[in-house]
Amino acid sequence: MKQSQLFGSTRRDISKEEVSKNAILLTRGGYIDKEMAGVYTLLPLAFRMAEKIKNIIREELNKLPHTSEVLMPVMQPHQLWEATGRREIIKDVMYDIKDESVGLGPTHEEVATELFSHFYNSYKQMPVAIYQMQTKFRNEPRAKSGLLRGREFMMKDLYSFHLTDEDIADYYLQVKDAYMRIFARVGLNAIYTDASGGVFTKYRSHEFQVLAESGEDEIYLNQLGDRAWNKELVNENDPEFLQFCEGVIDKRSAIEVGNIFRFDNKYSAPLNAAVTNKSGERIDVLGASYGIGITRLIGTIAEVYGDIEKSKINWPKSVAPYKIHLIELGQDLGQDMYNEIVGAIHELPAASDILYDDRDESAGTKFADADLIGAPMRIIISSRTLERESVELNGGLVKLTDLKNKLT
Amino acid sequence: MKQSQLFGSTRRDISKEEVSKNAILLTRGGYIDKEMAGVYTLLPLAFRMAEKIKNIIREELNKLPHTSEVLMPVMQPHQLWEATGRREIIKDVMYDIKDESVGLGPTHEEVATELFSHFYNSYKQMPVAIYQMQTKFRNEPRAKSGLLRGREFMMKDLYSFHLTDEDIADYYLQVKDAYMRIFARVGLNAIYTDASGGVFTKYRSHEFQVLAESGEDEIYLNQLGDRAWNKELVNENDPEFLQFCEGVIDKRSAIEVGNIFRFDNKYSAPLNAAVTNKSGERIDVLGASYGIGITRLIGTIAEVYGDIEKSKINWPKSVAPYKIHLIELGQDLGQDMYNEIVGAIHELPAASDILYDDRDESAGTKFADADLIGAPMRIIISSRTLERESVELNGGLVKLTDLKNKLT
Repeated sequence: MKQSQLFGSTRRDISKEEVSKNAILLTRGGYIDKEMAGVYTLLPLAFRMAEKIKNIIREELNKLPHTSEVLMPVMQPHQLWEATGRREIIKDVMYDIKDESVGLGPTHEEVATELFSHFYNSYKQMPVAIYQMQTKFRNEPRAKSGLLRGREFMMKDLYSFHLTDEDIADYYLQVKDAYMRIFARVGLNAIYTDASGGVFTKYRSHEFQVLAESGEDEIYLNQLGDRAWNKELVNENDPEFLQFCEGVIDKRSAIEVGNIFRFDNKYSAPLNAAVTNKSGERIDVLGASYGIGITRLIGTIAEVYGDIEKSKINWPKSVAPYKIHLIELGQDLGQDMYNEIVGAIHELPAASDILYDDRDESAGTKFADADLIGAPMRIIISSRTLERESVELNGGLVKLTDLKNKLT
Repeated sequence: MKQSQLFGSTRRDISKEEVSKNAILLTRGGYIDKEMAGVYTLLPLAFRMAEKIKNIIREELNKLPHTSEVLMPVMQPHQLWEATGRREIIKDVMYDIKDESVGLGPTHEEVATELFSHFYNSYKQMPVAIYQMQTKFRNEPRAKSGLLRGREFMMKDLYSFHLTDEDIADYYLQVKDAYMRIFARVGLNAIYTDASGGVFTKYRSHEFQVLAESGEDEIYLNQLGDRAWNKELVNENDPEFLQFCEGVIDKRSAIEVGNIFRFDNKYSAPLNAAVTNKSGERIDVLGASYGIGITRLIGTIAEVYGDIEKSKINWPKSVAPYKIHLIELGQDLGQDMYNEIVGAIHELPAASDILYDDRDESAGTKFADADLIGAPMRIIISSRTLERESVELNGGLVKLTDLKNKLT
């Protein structure tokens, strides 16, 4: 992609209203544009990141058994929420449509459970699971954390339905493993964290927490740093907790990038999502839900990989909007030479992953922009490098003839 | 994909409320599930179709110069619509959020134009265009046409911004050509149709119309059948119209699957989307918008390729959720043999495009379901075919050893 044709641009002066690291860096970098508090346009750079993250999630979730991708409606009848007793609880968070008994989906347990009930009535058809990647809406009182807490945001939500305790427990762990792979692939070290399951369930829920100073959650890490308890769950005199901590209490701020909840028949009972078992009795199915904030992931990766003082991000390769930033310096170099180099790079598998800064700007501007755009590989072509039949790749001279090997 | 693991199923008895051909066939086929009037879940089969259509659209639009994909917010401040004078016009169609001066986007001219103004101020940066594929919301008084007219639906919308009359006219025609390629690729014969541009513009708009008895539009076709005028534009005494018709009036029902509008400075003037020209004067940019209904396309293809009497659809290969439906008959055939056949087919590029009916159902049920699911290629394996070391491919016996050649 030629940078001169890319919609949007980096920005130096941005609104003082943006106080979060991710919003400042992503706005400066030309990734996002704020429409109102908690509501952003994903410009081409952030849109590409979201697509890459979605593809990683899809690849991992499609490995799960009996799991299909769907798209449920955003609009949800209030009556479903009244049936499960959650209407009162959700009232402040759910955006309602004026003059209609309809709200915008902040989550889809009710809709998914009712959808299930339209198709399933026998143990023979069980288990089954559906997921979607969709824009969600929540009337957040605080919306000052950029992509970490949006009023309109992109989420992956998965709902599974099971006949037996063993089956739901087994699938729950399979999703946990898929989540750990997803977070690792997008460059995040997510810590599997015990959390309160809420008032409706006897189970704990589990969160995937990424350490970050800006995180709104507080977690207590174990000594290895690979397991945690959410503060909400912790009583510092609880023997189980003390055993978990081994006496060394390490309390850290973290961002919740995913969560998984087992709620059994909380929604299936009121919504009549029951199937007949082998004996012909109707039993409520057991359910669980599993979420990942897709736009929140973009914000989290920016928090972890960004440097606000240096106005710089260094994205992981897997999610960078473009893997290679190709920068030309000086207009006196022949078009033929550029074509040759760009052509050579474009033969690589990463062809569509090159952002080519063809703009008539100074070297200083181009480098400052490249720092903000944050591609993991930077190739510079100038008369100085071409004299040596070379380009500069991440700071080192590389012969043109060697470039392909270095990139693959 | 094993059919036993696919979420949803075909349905025989469906609500009498569904009166449109596409909704009846897509509901019977297990493609969609209705949540409320005009609001449907896309089940895995329809979700896959939507993804295939989106990919075709993306491939064609990414060929256009200076055109980037973005994702703008669904939530739109009323104030933008007040600024352009469209708030009153849109009032009945736009869903508003209770207690907020915010509505849900039925279209994005205002948002896109304001977004443009955040980044562009010089002729040097022009032209530029953005598109998105997004869920849109419209409070349609009639919502009885299934996916042809949804209250919540998926749309591709593109907005372009130009400095000169020549440039906008040229881009407009490039989009027209891209649209014709898109519709041809999804299996539709779209007719380029002159229509009224509305009260705000001196230009006609253009629609892409597909002939169908169920179509809500009426168009007058030329003799070759490749150009049309929308009825709204026609005065049967108009000499231009008479020349167009060459005296032979062929009035037909049609479905509008896309439209393109040139509106010049209608939105840029009130929203201050101006750039400086070479002389340093600020001039309003010229704009146009271009839409394709993605879920409406699914409905239209079902209208064109479906047969309600036979409970059958025969999807074009390019958009079928699965290209190949592999049906096993009889449970006495060894697993090894199946594995071998399925393995052989899976080596093909179409690997992920096979739906494998592994269910313990009768041949009659399997064939009836396959008719509704409508894969363009059907492979049947039974003891009868295997005795001849063959399978049945779209009704004809094919040796196993020849199958690969037949499929590629």
